[in-house]
Amino acid sequence: MTRMVTALTLHPHRLLPTDPAVRRLAGELYASVRQLPIISPHGHVPARWLADDVPFADPTSLLITPDHYVNRLLHAHGVGLEQLGVAQQDFDEESSRRAFRLLCDHWNIYRGTPVRYWLDTQLSEIFGVTVRPSADTADQIYDQIAGCLATPEFRPRALYERFGIDVLATTDDPCDDLGDHRRLAADPNWSGRVVPTFRPDRYLEPFSLTWNRDVERLGEAAGQSVDDYDGYLTALAERRRYFIANGAVSADHSHPDARTDPLEQTEARRLYRRARTGAITEAEATALRRHLVFEMGRMSAEDGLVMTIHPAISRNHHRPTAQRFGADVGCDIGVRVEFTEALRPLLNAVGTAPRFRLVIFTVDETSYSREIAPLAGFYPSVYVGAPWWFLDAPDAIRRFRAAVSETVGFGKTSGFIDDTRAFCSIPARHDMSRRLDAGYLAQLVTEHRLEEDEAFEVVHDLVDATPRKVFNL
Amino acid sequence: MTRMVTALTLHPHRLLPTDPAVRRLAGELYASVRQLPIISPHGHVPARWLADDVPFADPTSLLITPDHYVNRLLHAHGVGLEQLGVAQQDFDEESSRRAFRLLCDHWNIYRGTPVRYWLDTQLSEIFGVTVRPSADTADQIYDQIAGCLATPEFRPRALYERFGIDVLATTDDPCDDLGDHRRLAADPNWSGRVVPTFRPDRYLEPFSLTWNRDVERLGEAAGQSVDDYDGYLTALAERRRYFIANGAVSADHSHPDARTDPLEQTEARRLYRRARTGAITEAEATALRRHLVFEMGRMSAEDGLVMTIHPAISRNHHRPTAQRFGADVGCDIGVRVEFTEALRPLLNAVGTAPRFRLVIFTVDETSYSREIAPLAGFYPSVYVGAPWWFLDAPDAIRRFRAAVSETVGFGKTSGFIDDTRAFCSIPARHDMSRRLDAGYLAQLVTEHRLEEDEAFEVVHDLVDATPRKVFNL
Amino acid sequence: MTRMVTALTLHPHRLLPTDPAVRRLAGELYASVRQLPIISPHGHVPARWLADDVPFADPTSLLITPDHYVNRLLHAHGVGLEQLGVAQQDFDEESSRRAFRLLCDHWNIYRGTPVRYWLDTQLSEIFGVTVRPSADTADQIYDQIAGCLATPEFRPRALYERFGIDVLATTDDPCDDLGDHRRLAADPNWSGRVVPTFRPDRYLEPFSLTWNRDVERLGEAAGQSVDDYDGYLTALAERRRYFIANGAVSADHSHPDARTDPLEQTEARRLYRRARTGAITEAEATALRRHLVFEMGRMSAEDGLVMTIHPAISRNHHRPTAQRFGADVGCDIGVRVEFTEALRPLLNAVGTAPRFRLVIFTVDETSYSREIAPLAGFYPSVYVGAPWWFLDAPDAIRRFRAAVSETVGFGKTSGFIDDTRAFCSIPARHDMSRRLDAGYLAQLVTEHRLEEDEAFEVVHDLVDATPRKVFNL
Repeated sequence: MTRMVTALTLHPHRLLPTDPAVRRLAGELYASVRQLPIISPHGHVPARWLADDVPFADPTSLLITPDHYVNRLLHAHGVGLEQLGVAQQDFDEESSRRAFRLLCDHWNIYRGTPVRYWLDTQLSEIFGVTVRPSADTADQIYDQIAGCLATPEFRPRALYERFGIDVLATTDDPCDDLGDHRRLAADPNWSGRVVPTFRPDRYLEPFSLTWNRDVERLGEAAGQSVDDYDGYLTALAERRRYFIANGAVSADHSHPDARTDPLEQTEARRLYRRARTGAITEAEATALRRHLVFEMGRMSAEDGLVMTIHPAISRNHHRPTAQRFGADVGCDIGVRVEFTEALRPLLNAVGTAPRFRLVIFTVDETSYSREIAPLAGFYPSVYVGAPWWFLDAPDAIRRFRAAVSETVGFGKTSGFIDDTRAFCSIPARHDMSRRLDAGYLAQLVTEHRLEEDEAFEVVHDLVDATPRKVFNL
Repeated sequence: MTRMVTALTLHPHRLLPTDPAVRRLAGELYASVRQLPIISPHGHVPARWLADDVPFADPTSLLITPDHYVNRLLHAHGVGLEQLGVAQQDFDEESSRRAFRLLCDHWNIYRGTPVRYWLDTQLSEIFGVTVRPSADTADQIYDQIAGCLATPEFRPRALYERFGIDVLATTDDPCDDLGDHRRLAADPNWSGRVVPTFRPDRYLEPFSLTWNRDVERLGEAAGQSVDDYDGYLTALAERRRYFIANGAVSADHSHPDARTDPLEQTEARRLYRRARTGAITEAEATALRRHLVFEMGRMSAEDGLVMTIHPAISRNHHRPTAQRFGADVGCDIGVRVEFTEALRPLLNAVGTAPRFRLVIFTVDETSYSREIAPLAGFYPSVYVGAPWWFLDAPDAIRRFRAAVSETVGFGKTSGFIDDTRAFCSIPARHDMSRRLDAGYLAQLVTEHRLEEDEAFEVVHDLVDATPRKVFNL
Repeated sequence: MTRMVTALTLHPHRLLPTDPAVRRLAGELYASVRQLPIISPHGHVPARWLADDVPFADPTSLLITPDHYVNRLLHAHGVGLEQLGVAQQDFDEESSRRAFRLLCDHWNIYRGTPVRYWLDTQLSEIFGVTVRPSADTADQIYDQIAGCLATPEFRPRALYERFGIDVLATTDDPCDDLGDHRRLAADPNWSGRVVPTFRPDRYLEPFSLTWNRDVERLGEAAGQSVDDYDGYLTALAERRRYFIANGAVSADHSHPDARTDPLEQTEARRLYRRARTGAITEAEATALRRHLVFEMGRMSAEDGLVMTIHPAISRNHHRPTAQRFGADVGCDIGVRVEFTEALRPLLNAVGTAPRFRLVIFTVDETSYSREIAPLAGFYPSVYVGAPWWFLDAPDAIRRFRAAVSETVGFGKTSGFIDDTRAFCSIPARHDMSRRLDAGYLAQLVTEHRLEEDEAFEVVHDLVDATPRKVFNL
């Protein structure tokens, strides 16, 4: 049997437009920002990795298991999630290697996807892999990565520095004592910046089966009785304060819709009591949740935590998978979302408040030109979030810029957000975004819609001044 | 302090595709229509300007104050509308100059938007400005424009002629006596053509607080009792007749949705009575309005006024702004819209009637390929309206052509509509459209989907034969 | 009078990208698949044509009358469907020639549409026409095609062979005895493959006026009492079995929405009884239909018929036209569609079942990136259907690939589906798809998102391995 081994190479002009004149300028624009530090104001890397700085265990648990982008497509092609170590504790060396072979053997299924692009970049730039993954090269690549992981240069803090990360935000439960963040911040050997993010979803969904228990824990964490609605709100405010004291700059919200309909205080108190006794109906719980999201916005206008919203995902679409493997394993699917009427109550209340800032993310592209860009093009507080999830991909990012720039320009967009659990994919993702913005701007210049000096200023702002301003960094 | 002054120049190939072969042909196509007269069948310039022909007061009230495209983005970047003279009567020279400085100082926020493109074009082509606006150049540019405005060459009629306008439609209240239009038409020194447009929205929304008063005025204007429903309908028909007698070619409608559900006559009469006594509910008022829009369509099929619809905008989204500054100041936001079922009753009634014509506009791009193009691709009466509002922008116009041409070709689109209050932006807007259509056609030819002789014919029709045919001009 | 005669030519590079470097590679990719056999797993050509192999009657009844793509646009430009022979039996030579002249005289209205592209290709490649259709050339072209049709080389079977068709699926009523298919399969002179498709829509819509009669016929065809619900389900299962025995590989479903909400068996039985007595309400009938579509999915998971769905079309939008000319004459218009929640019950039941396969088609492009691609990117059973109907067009196909590839790659798309009644357009349609896929892949390679060897593999798979795998061919 002949082994088919093909080289893995990254072209310096990858993702730049194909028209030679546009590509030339895009390449110059990209070169001017390629080395700038990474600002990552929203993501899912655990702070513990950096606090403990213990070596990553193995290639699979680093690159495959935690990354639902990778897993979901393998599953779509018939590979069981259990074969990939999802939700498993004891995943031994042999299992890890077998899972890695499955990935390499299915390399073709990622053609045309950004996952392939990110993996190529990680393998080549971080681990120095020079052969294309396949059934034949799987073991060799596995060994090469495993070898790297055993060295000090591949421990989390070393990678953080090598990646040029300036700020990294995590996503955290309001009851979290942020011990990892505190330990890290107190560590004299650590000079990076890892900030927590307040993510209160579960405490705002009174129909959830765990809500009463969650709220109890919230009260304990805040040292505040949550027996009544006012105490509960105080507890939320207190935990926000605690997060801010520990470096948090934003609060993130993800619910089935984007509505923010406030209730009368008496009605809110009544529904809270019903929820605490377990008697609340689903419709009442939805009404209370929409009110609570309004209250979160009101608090943001006061305490200055930037409000980010990621609504309208059908979570855990395939229940049998969620029951067996838990949440966030790739069976979340987009649904339509409405922002214009949904956000109206909140924006009428605090849309022009000086400290309020709202960043809107969507997986429903139709809202970009119709709703989000017009909202950000009027309200000083509103920013267009970078393409999220399925839309964090080259063609989708181009569509995003083409859909929003004509209505809001560049200054009311959020800057790139990687939103990832896959630590090693962070540089590849930010690099992809920089290439695409450079390409979009080069196109504008070549069509004489923008001058060259302006394009250089914009491409720089988008990776530096913009995210710093939007997230107060 | 060094003053940074950068030249302002317009490239002859701006907005044309970047591929050299495509650009060459696009340039030839554009050149063949560049000088053709402007036909503007829908817009918001006051007829009074041309009837009176008094000089424009100052650069700000000409270029900034009336243009919500300009204001909204300044507001989004923290500039108060009061600083821009919105809704203010006494806006003195110093305030005007200060507002103009604010615009120039925020020049960067318009990067990537068509507003920037239109402003560049106006400054350069109309006023001969040669420096890029900035804090440093604001006064110089202000003075240059003010100097122009003081000369006879910059009075409204002179500009109308210089712009090469052939027909200009205004938008008018049904009670308007069209005095400005009549005066203009009777003026022996005037050889242009300014036609009114019948815009009855407020008379068709019985839940509006002013509706009863509005209907009374309508009755007076028509010399027709509006005590009952039949009289009211007669009054509407009479005012349409009056508009037609004074040159109107179309009736424009903008409501929260596009529905056209007819009521039984007895039910319509009943709801009208309830509305007149102030007892109508919101749901009943909506039902009556949908019926009345159906009736407007039926009248269009009889009297030949082309029906244009601009539905599905959340008007005055930020109430505090609307309360302080009034309507149409930039806080209108798009919402989803449905046409297929909404227009079915009307199209089943008059969709194949020989005199009926319906032009559909949208800010919800999703309806182009799914609903509007298929409707226009079957019903002889239906035309696809040009991209409206936020979609009147280069990338959006390209998406529009790509979304509708494959289903309806070119002959069932409306021709370009500028829909603007900003008189001086009219040539820039029509020029932009011509460049983009030339680019789209050149692309089709270069992909061998169309022959070159056909592209020349289409690009000419789109600015000449098409709008004349669609609007009976 | 001078006759304007322009040549009709097909450029070898038509539909390929304009950038020279991309076009070169696209041309090579296209060349590698240009001659591959045609696999057509869903369409509307009658099996009888091939079973009888009688010559086509005349140019009009071959190219115009059965093709609502052609008719609808003529109708939109004022040509009555009766002039085109739609729904007419006695369409004599003179009428046929007159209709053909109407088409040629309106040649311009198809500019920019794929209809024009398909007609150009058919005229040139099948009938050797060398002049562009127009009023002046209509008769000449008519005569040339009529002359062809009189020769043995243009009889259906000869064309089937010349077109290089490997498999051709028809669409059939569940009560059809598939006599034409059986006759064809038994014919020793026939070596092609024509397979039926099970299309049970009318038997699943209990509110339809014909439903009771339809269900009776179904029972007769199945030799099974349909007095109760269980018998009715058995009859459906039996007809599926009969279709499978006669070569069917898929079952096609087209309803107003995509919902699949199962009912309790007792409730299903109760509603069935009410439907059989004619007492069922519209809401109950909708509930029963959604349950029945769920049941069809469950049967597919058992018997292996690939389930294809084409939901969300407003059928027969213009009732007067439908009443006079029948269904499928071009007045079907798209509406919004929701898949994520709609398909959840079915996918929770059989989404990971080994034999189940679901191919989702849409005319609502917004669902591609938001719903369909994410579903296909998780469920092993789900495939993204090729662009359907209005979206089977060059720009729309490019948007399709750009919208879905980044989420699901290529291996979870269905391969091209022509879905046509116009037999002679089949090669042109498949050729168009091959050119566009070649162009998309060449673009990816030139942007260094895919390697060249991979692009050659993908473009080949898309026309060969993919449809064979998806449809078990």
